[in-house]
Amino acid sequence: MTDPNEKNGEVARITMAHGNGGRRMRELIQSLFLRHLGNPWLTPLTDAAILPHRLPPDHDLAFASDGVTVQPLFFPGGDIGSLAVHGTVNDLAVSGATPLYLSINAFLEEGLPIEQLDRIVGSLATAARANNVHIVAGDTKVLPQGLCDGVYLGVSGIGVRPRGLLLGAERIHAGDAILVSGPVGDHGIAVLLAREAFGLSGSLASDSASVLPLTQSILDLPGLRLMRDPTRGGLATVLHEIAEATGQGIQLDEGQIPIRPAVRSACDMLGYDPLFMACEGRVVAVVSIHDVDDVLRRWRALPQGQEASRIGVVVPDHDQIVVRNAWGGKRVLQPLENDPLPRIC
Amino acid sequence: MTDPNEKNGEVARITMAHGNGGRRMRELIQSLFLRHLGNPWLTPLTDAAILPHRLPPDHDLAFASDGVTVQPLFFPGGDIGSLAVHGTVNDLAVSGATPLYLSINAFLEEGLPIEQLDRIVGSLATAARANNVHIVAGDTKVLPQGLCDGVYLGVSGIGVRPRGLLLGAERIHAGDAILVSGPVGDHGIAVLLAREAFGLSGSLASDSASVLPLTQSILDLPGLRLMRDPTRGGLATVLHEIAEATGQGIQLDEGQIPIRPAVRSACDMLGYDPLFMACEGRVVAVVSIHDVDDVLRRWRALPQGQEASRIGVVVPDHDQIVVRNAWGGKRVLQPLENDPLPRIC
Repeated sequence: MTDPNEKNGEVARITMAHGNGGRRMRELIQSLFLRHLGNPWLTPLTDAAILPHRLPPDHDLAFASDGVTVQPLFFPGGDIGSLAVHGTVNDLAVSGATPLYLSINAFLEEGLPIEQLDRIVGSLATAARANNVHIVAGDTKVLPQGLCDGVYLGVSGIGVRPRGLLLGAERIHAGDAILVSGPVGDHGIAVLLAREAFGLSGSLASDSASVLPLTQSILDLPGLRLMRDPTRGGLATVLHEIAEATGQGIQLDEGQIPIRPAVRSACDMLGYDPLFMACEGRVVAVVSIHDVDDVLRRWRALPQGQEASRIGVVVPDHDQIVVRNAWGGKRVLQPLENDPLPRIC
Repeated sequence: MTDPNEKNGEVARITMAHGNGGRRMRELIQSLFLRHLGNPWLTPLTDAAILPHRLPPDHDLAFASDGVTVQPLFFPGGDIGSLAVHGTVNDLAVSGATPLYLSINAFLEEGLPIEQLDRIVGSLATAARANNVHIVAGDTKVLPQGLCDGVYLGVSGIGVRPRGLLLGAERIHAGDAILVSGPVGDHGIAVLLAREAFGLSGSLASDSASVLPLTQSILDLPGLRLMRDPTRGGLATVLHEIAEATGQGIQLDEGQIPIRPAVRSACDMLGYDPLFMACEGRVVAVVSIHDVDDVLRRWRALPQGQEASRIGVVVPDHDQIVVRNAWGGKRVLQPLENDPLPRIC
């Protein structure tokens, strides 16, 4: 098989023929996708992957989806490939599930350098291996130049979840604590700064990562009510959804919300609120006050959770989010209305 | 909740804020997606759907994916919504599986009329119900105007398959028969003619449909070797893949391949070979000669299979596809090289 990245000394690019179901599409799948992703279920290239029966009898299936359209495709701390794996792994993880299998729908732009696709699929494969999940199904469509911005990925994932696990907004009571596993807004700001248009660059990297170690570490705690990963719309949007679902309010202690100085100063400069900036490797957990110390101890013992913090409390009577600062001042956090950011996930 | 299709008397359109995770996105999901698709697993809008344990102990999981980017979004016989459901249902069906659950990754273009999205999601829902599958997970991303052609859908599906079922190219022997469940090329030509650029229109409709009744009707036959659905690249491409996988050849009897007159004349006029035109509701089956009559009888008893036909035979020694016409002439069918068609799936 010839090197897919070179053709008569020129950079090889995706053509419409790579999406037509014929010979060039099969070559691309063999020489690029399967080289990175090959496994016993994907490699036969059948219409559906037939999966070994790994479902324990006391578990349910969990099924999640996440689409990824980030620009730029490569950014400090990650790229669209690893981000796509983490997106779906994290949706399963915060649901209390262990991810097992992923499928990838790839939408590719005609003209995309195959070298870029190669790096992205390599990154997909590395992220999948790191999380012990297998990419077992996929499909590729090619769009005419201009009708796709390089690559969009639609990922779906199957996981298993212990049947007795009770997580949900209906378990949340006034007095429960709100915890976050690490600094918020890193991903949103890192991607924003990576866009040339801003002419800024910094040391900041995306937090794009699997949260599975964080979620698995606290699943056994009886006071665990709910976990969420604050992606689009950031911490504020997850808290609004929790408030809306419970009909209760949340009071945040501003000084306890971990925010990196670089994120804070970029937000100050650009006029954004870090509480609305996307994370891609954080967990928000609502837990009974009896379990707060256990959660913080377990999270802080993990590399990703060292800056875990208790940031607020559920309060009765209204569904507002109120932020209190160190001087006793209060502000109400409004729900996200307009689009604060270019495509960051 | 206000009518999502009207706003101050103007047509409401998708905006970037419908993709930001905030209030307008939640409203769109509630007032449009859940109105059509709502079910006990999707409606809670949790990060992952937790599915009831419907997996019989003597079955394996099947997992399949299909991306859909067809233009125009609406065409005679279907639209991108029903096509998306049929694509994944059919991938599972030809694998011998019964589809149970689907996930949808929707990529929407800023400016898309919400009325169009409403029809598409309604069509998704109708097609899912008709196949007894539930859409239980989803995600929506909005792309800036011009960077998406209305709507792209990435679908993944979970099914169950009897564990003892043996289907695969390795079971195919010289002498096995090749059968097709109905006329080929309807979808490709119907979509092509629906494109205004061609200035043509005809009575032809896409064959977009679930093939599940066809596949389920013959699963018990011991001589069933393999089933495929000839989509992108058409019948010819599926036969090339079978020939490549088995290392054997296929001899086709041109007079036995069902092709509608309207498809044949459109192909003549436009210079296409109908054998390369996509189908979206047909099955190609390879079966032992002992089971040919049973397959044809069962397929012809179904509304979709009335024109089922035995079209060829597996021959030893080479992996070519040879087409014999009524006068004894022969031509070799080459694999698909360049892109024959605009986006038809």
